[in-house]
Amino acid sequence: MSAEPFRYEAVRQDVLALIASGALAPGGKAPSLRRLAARMRVSLSTVSQAYAQLESEGVLEARPKSGFFIRQSRQSLPSPMAVPQAASTPEPLHRAALIRKVLENMALPGVVPLGVARTAENLLPLVRLNRILTQVLREQGERVGFYEQVQGHEPLRQQVVMRVLETGAECKVGETVITSGAMEALHIALRAVTRAGDTVCIAVPAYFCFLQLLENLGLRVIEVPSRPGEGVRPGDLAQVVDSFRVAACVLAPNFNNPDGALTPDGAKAEIVDILARRGVPLIEDDVYGDLHFGPDRPKCCKAYDTKGLVLYCSSFSKTITPGYRVGWLLPGRFLDKALEIKSTLNVCTATPTQMAMAEYLRSGHYHRHLKRLRPAIAAQMETMHSRIGRHFPPGTKATRPCGGSVLWVQLPGGMDSVAFMHKALARGVTVSPGTIFSSRDQFGDYVRLSYSAVAEPQLAQAVETLGMIATEMLG
Amino acid sequence: MSAEPFRYEAVRQDVLALIASGALAPGGKAPSLRRLAARMRVSLSTVSQAYAQLESEGVLEARPKSGFFIRQSRQSLPSPMAVPQAASTPEPLHRAALIRKVLENMALPGVVPLGVARTAENLLPLVRLNRILTQVLREQGERVGFYEQVQGHEPLRQQVVMRVLETGAECKVGETVITSGAMEALHIALRAVTRAGDTVCIAVPAYFCFLQLLENLGLRVIEVPSRPGEGVRPGDLAQVVDSFRVAACVLAPNFNNPDGALTPDGAKAEIVDILARRGVPLIEDDVYGDLHFGPDRPKCCKAYDTKGLVLYCSSFSKTITPGYRVGWLLPGRFLDKALEIKSTLNVCTATPTQMAMAEYLRSGHYHRHLKRLRPAIAAQMETMHSRIGRHFPPGTKATRPCGGSVLWVQLPGGMDSVAFMHKALARGVTVSPGTIFSSRDQFGDYVRLSYSAVAEPQLAQAVETLGMIATEMLG
Repeated sequence: MSAEPFRYEAVRQDVLALIASGALAPGGKAPSLRRLAARMRVSLSTVSQAYAQLESEGVLEARPKSGFFIRQSRQSLPSPMAVPQAASTPEPLHRAALIRKVLENMALPGVVPLGVARTAENLLPLVRLNRILTQVLREQGERVGFYEQVQGHEPLRQQVVMRVLETGAECKVGETVITSGAMEALHIALRAVTRAGDTVCIAVPAYFCFLQLLENLGLRVIEVPSRPGEGVRPGDLAQVVDSFRVAACVLAPNFNNPDGALTPDGAKAEIVDILARRGVPLIEDDVYGDLHFGPDRPKCCKAYDTKGLVLYCSSFSKTITPGYRVGWLLPGRFLDKALEIKSTLNVCTATPTQMAMAEYLRSGHYHRHLKRLRPAIAAQMETMHSRIGRHFPPGTKATRPCGGSVLWVQLPGGMDSVAFMHKALARGVTVSPGTIFSSRDQFGDYVRLSYSAVAEPQLAQAVETLGMIATEMLG
Repeated sequence: MSAEPFRYEAVRQDVLALIASGALAPGGKAPSLRRLAARMRVSLSTVSQAYAQLESEGVLEARPKSGFFIRQSRQSLPSPMAVPQAASTPEPLHRAALIRKVLENMALPGVVPLGVARTAENLLPLVRLNRILTQVLREQGERVGFYEQVQGHEPLRQQVVMRVLETGAECKVGETVITSGAMEALHIALRAVTRAGDTVCIAVPAYFCFLQLLENLGLRVIEVPSRPGEGVRPGDLAQVVDSFRVAACVLAPNFNNPDGALTPDGAKAEIVDILARRGVPLIEDDVYGDLHFGPDRPKCCKAYDTKGLVLYCSSFSKTITPGYRVGWLLPGRFLDKALEIKSTLNVCTATPTQMAMAEYLRSGHYHRHLKRLRPAIAAQMETMHSRIGRHFPPGTKATRPCGGSVLWVQLPGGMDSVAFMHKALARGVTVSPGTIFSSRDQFGDYVRLSYSAVAEPQLAQAVETLGMIATEMLG
């Protein structure tokens, strides 16, 4: 992170992160001024200033003679509980045009990019990474200009093996493939196990770039619901794969984009088993797994894979840098096919960025960085969530995810989120309309908002602007 | 280039480059010692030493009282003139397994990689490029960690527009797409204009990674001959596209890999016209266009494209560095589709390497670098060609290309080039067997040898080793 926030801001973020992680529950008592001052080694007046700020933001409420309490924000801003429409038949996709329009808007200069699920640059270790790449150029010399192995730079793959251990899975260096980001990993995984015309099962709402990729590869889609608060139910999935001839499943069990749903580890085990018994490959996207707000990293489906049928995809784009384009794939039993696709795609991923990433990981920076990054993003989630509760009209619903980058907001009164998007853009804020997160017509009154893309106070101001727009549209 | 060769070696390379460029013709008189010494500002004895060396290599011959002459090496080592077998029906491909085996051998440590069509690191400006990337990291700071536009870094695309001008074509910045190497450009181009099951016309012998890519995309292949010394005849192509339903053509008109064939500019214009009248897209690979040994850069097919049907692919992997993975695509009228594919492939190409490449080109280094690189590679071609003439058994034939990286050698007596490959590998030299350069069973007695992959004296020694193997196999 580029600059140390002011002391009282640090206290404020700490409290927000504790709330986001679940350590402080709505309705429960906040730590006393004295205790927090001692823990954070700041003065009583600093904590007092932070609490006053949090009170004005509607996060805390002061009760006379009892101290501060966490406001019951869940009640004032309920989570959308509607289960997405169940699928009936596999459909070809026709979303590319709308998605392109949304993406173009996001790239406009000067807008506040709440429509983009990325991590703000001030939260990423870009300065240190630059320094490490400079060092790599000095130490490795001409070697950074050589082709890398198709499979990827071996020291980086060794580090990937260490990262994979944290997800509960295990793999050997020879089972990893470095890709140019997670999207390329998904692309390779899909091409390894499907052919044009095949049907792929996805959980909706689903990340719209998946839908674009599936459309681009000529695949049909059958949808299974991602339920708010619980993710994919194994029974739902079993029903789909028993009713349709499914070539593969694509799931993001950890903090699904856009609804932030976390599929419990037990359900993951069941899902892997259900698919394995039917011989269906599971393509798992875990780009948000490291951004958990609670104390423990959720496991990945790959951890329960005994047959090599899970193709695990991830990257460092959300936690270290997107610009280096470094991701990875554990293709399981499809390793040969994956390498063949990678070699005919672009031979290998760029050498200097792979080397720098390997060195960044090797020197232990990632662990320390994550320890700061997670509470910072958790605090931004809390800020956005509480601001939506304050500024959006009654009837608005929003998820309160325990990890990831985005909130999934249901606008009140069946409001059209594409119209909302256009009005927001006119006031300099981008959002992603719900309709692009499914292959069918649903989520028309949803928007996805990213709480990690910009820092405060821009974040809070943008949410306030959106709240005014929603209020106007409703009135 | 990393080190200045000795003075006499510089003279020797200069003479070899003049021969390769056609400025000195076989049978013709070499410059007098006096004239060359004056031109190169070296002593008479230096030139004399170089000429003695060239004489011992069989490049020059001394005639009493007449001076030195260029040996008639073309007569002692004729070019293979057989026209590749004409195609009868489009075929699905089954080459991946053999190609993977060849690629694995190439990656073995400690071998002399004559099987790889790459440019030796000592010929690439890697030190300067490292310096420029270091400077970019200092000056651009955190920006190198951001996502780039899907289409690519704009200053780099401006430089690509300048490069394209040199090929005789014209384009706007908005018509360029940066890719992670030329292979990715080809991949995107093919996916933009074909679907699995379609038939694609290629010129054979063809670069085996094309064949692997076509197989990987589930495409069928119909072959048109690439004729030694003249490339693709427009009439041959017209016949194929009139007889079969062809979704696209893939050609490398400038120094086709492996036979080095240069299709004349007039024929290029005809080919573009033939395909345009039939509405067939042409995917053009021009990675070797900048490596011409003669004074003028050959034009590209794109220069004759009036309908936006030519998809032009190139990269800096052969002339600057392969490790940075920077190539480009001019997709013509298929721009929207190409951008959609790129965004679902890997979102964008890595930012730091794009920025460094832009700065390298902007500061004018490329032009000066090419002026040194071309004669250096031309000299290595001459060395390899004359050594083959000396050390391979009678009956051997070899191309003598006027650009590019590789020689296409026909072994005598119908020798099996896969067996030759295995024997060569056992003695520490890799070669590419001819059979992987076609979708059908032909070129079984050919090998492709790269003259740019290693420097002398390793190059000459390896050719001598191969000559011994061929002699043994024939005996």
